[in-house]
Amino acid sequence: MNAPSERPSCLVVGAGGVGVATAYSLSRSGQSVVSLVVRSDFDHVVKNGYQLDSRDYGMVEKWRPDHLFQTAEGAAQSGMFFDYIVVTVKNVPDGSTNGTVSNIIRPILESNRTILGDRVTNILLVQNGIDIEKELLEEFKEAQYKLSLLSGVQMIASTKIGPGIIKQKGQDSLSVGPFNPDDHDAIAAAHKFVSIYSNEGCNHVQYDPEVRKTRWNKLLYNATINSTTAIVGLDVVRCLEFGKERKGTEMQILRPAMREIISIAATEGIKVEEEQIDRFISIGRKLVYKPSMCIDFEKNQLMEVEVILGNPVRIAEKNGVAVPTLTVLYSLMTLLQAKVKESKGLLKFDEETLKLVEN
Amino acid sequence: MNAPSERPSCLVVGAGGVGVATAYSLSRSGQSVVSLVVRSDFDHVVKNGYQLDSRDYGMVEKWRPDHLFQTAEGAAQSGMFFDYIVVTVKNVPDGSTNGTVSNIIRPILESNRTILGDRVTNILLVQNGIDIEKELLEEFKEAQYKLSLLSGVQMIASTKIGPGIIKQKGQDSLSVGPFNPDDHDAIAAAHKFVSIYSNEGCNHVQYDPEVRKTRWNKLLYNATINSTTAIVGLDVVRCLEFGKERKGTEMQILRPAMREIISIAATEGIKVEEEQIDRFISIGRKLVYKPSMCIDFEKNQLMEVEVILGNPVRIAEKNGVAVPTLTVLYSLMTLLQAKVKESKGLLKFDEETLKLVEN
Repeated sequence: MNAPSERPSCLVVGAGGVGVATAYSLSRSGQSVVSLVVRSDFDHVVKNGYQLDSRDYGMVEKWRPDHLFQTAEGAAQSGMFFDYIVVTVKNVPDGSTNGTVSNIIRPILESNRTILGDRVTNILLVQNGIDIEKELLEEFKEAQYKLSLLSGVQMIASTKIGPGIIKQKGQDSLSVGPFNPDDHDAIAAAHKFVSIYSNEGCNHVQYDPEVRKTRWNKLLYNATINSTTAIVGLDVVRCLEFGKERKGTEMQILRPAMREIISIAATEGIKVEEEQIDRFISIGRKLVYKPSMCIDFEKNQLMEVEVILGNPVRIAEKNGVAVPTLTVLYSLMTLLQAKVKESKGLLKFDEETLKLVEN
Repeated sequence: MNAPSERPSCLVVGAGGVGVATAYSLSRSGQSVVSLVVRSDFDHVVKNGYQLDSRDYGMVEKWRPDHLFQTAEGAAQSGMFFDYIVVTVKNVPDGSTNGTVSNIIRPILESNRTILGDRVTNILLVQNGIDIEKELLEEFKEAQYKLSLLSGVQMIASTKIGPGIIKQKGQDSLSVGPFNPDDHDAIAAAHKFVSIYSNEGCNHVQYDPEVRKTRWNKLLYNATINSTTAIVGLDVVRCLEFGKERKGTEMQILRPAMREIISIAATEGIKVEEEQIDRFISIGRKLVYKPSMCIDFEKNQLMEVEVILGNPVRIAEKNGVAVPTLTVLYSLMTLLQAKVKESKGLLKFDEETLKLVEN
């Protein structure tokens, strides 16, 4: 940033459980100006503020960020420059065209470029999945938009349970680093973000030089356990306990699928430790918990299938790694996703011709 | 049979779409005395008879078999000897104990033995799956009960759509043969059954010397297509069309799983032709149709998971055949089955201890 004395300006895009809790952490530390894009709850939050019941901060009432916008376009038209665009929306590249991350944040990137052309726009993707930065790099030339892409991997267990009401069950643990480990601007911006995000004794945030590895680590859970729970509509511990002799799910689905993720990561130069498998299985056995895709499908909402399963399966194919278990899980998830799409009119099937109607 | 001049007595056990249509075919040909065990619709059928809207026989109104029984116990207590016990109930060995095929027909076998000890009791299993005769052979000594076990593989597409109302969409095509190809009594009994079941120009029934092969052929469909539709809750053509580039389901799930079935069958000395794969895929693309397990799961009813998937997977394990696709499908189906069981109280999970409660 070329105006170090000013507080940086952060725009959080996405006001679900993760987005609101993230915006609150930034606001609480007081080192940045915090704006939030709130789509559905806008009127409610303008009037009442947020209620945040947080593992890290206790019960927070009537909280509002510095600025509220109903849309990204609104934020873009505000005349403000945003040093950090923190993206916490669900990443569904196969959904509707205007729902892709690049299209959601496009107006902000355009306005940032107009307002102050020599400042860097840092985009921090606090999202699941692998290769999620590639969509942005295809859509926006880094040099032209002066972009710096940061990767955020978060554990938080935060959910919106009503209009303007957020329940954060876990400690916020956020790892931030550059997508490109050789990008010095991104490294500096990641360090800076850690400092403006930290609330000592409450949340946990760390600069992560190996955030790609951290991302693959989390994928070990999401591609396997998250997918399986979504397919069968059961929480994690039931999936584990309901397997043949209480071991079937673990031995026949989860461990083989996790080993496949480790093999794919290895061909990308990332070493994911085998012990992570035991760790995730063990965590899974300790809590009645339905992961994100399981909840999404129950609510008939689109799931992050492509970034969580599609991208690793495509990397496997490119790198010649056999992933029979993930392939079946991915194919089944594709069908569940299509079922949601059909119900939302994003996909049409003609019962006369018995064909999918291509858009 | 040692009383050839008499018409044989047939008891059909199971009055779903298949059972009623099967009993009607026997009745229509007039060569046997037909009894039917009707559990839930008993009072309705006693009063009104059946309405059968049949591809083979047109609209049949107010039909009743020669004898109606509400339970197998009732049939056993009737004092009648049954030459053929035609079993058309769903085969769910992992369900409740009194719902296993052997326990359902036990009273009839006991009474048959008492009534006329030297006559043979022919059991014809018109059911899906592989190795379904083994449960019976474990429970009843063939010599002691003078059993002859016949295998029936049926295509009929017949469904009960209301109390006493049956809709039979497909032509009844039944293959009957001995489970044990060296059992001469069973061969003779199968031939006899074909003759008493046939209604020329209407249904289709044939003596099948290779009924084991026919059973594996049908399994090619049931273990793969039937399972996949149950897991995702979509009809067959949607499963096919909703795959990646309209080929994903076929290439990533169905064909690999079908090839695994062919490999297992081969180790059992059964040659299932590769062309059967194309045939089933092609049939699947031509009709909006939900197979049995898909319908069962939608109705929250137990599915024939163990005889359709469990048994072939166990044969694969015993014979050293790698079946990665079927293994994942089976593990997922096990979870869906457990979900149904939990909802019916057949299985309990303790949310305090986070453990399955063993019965």
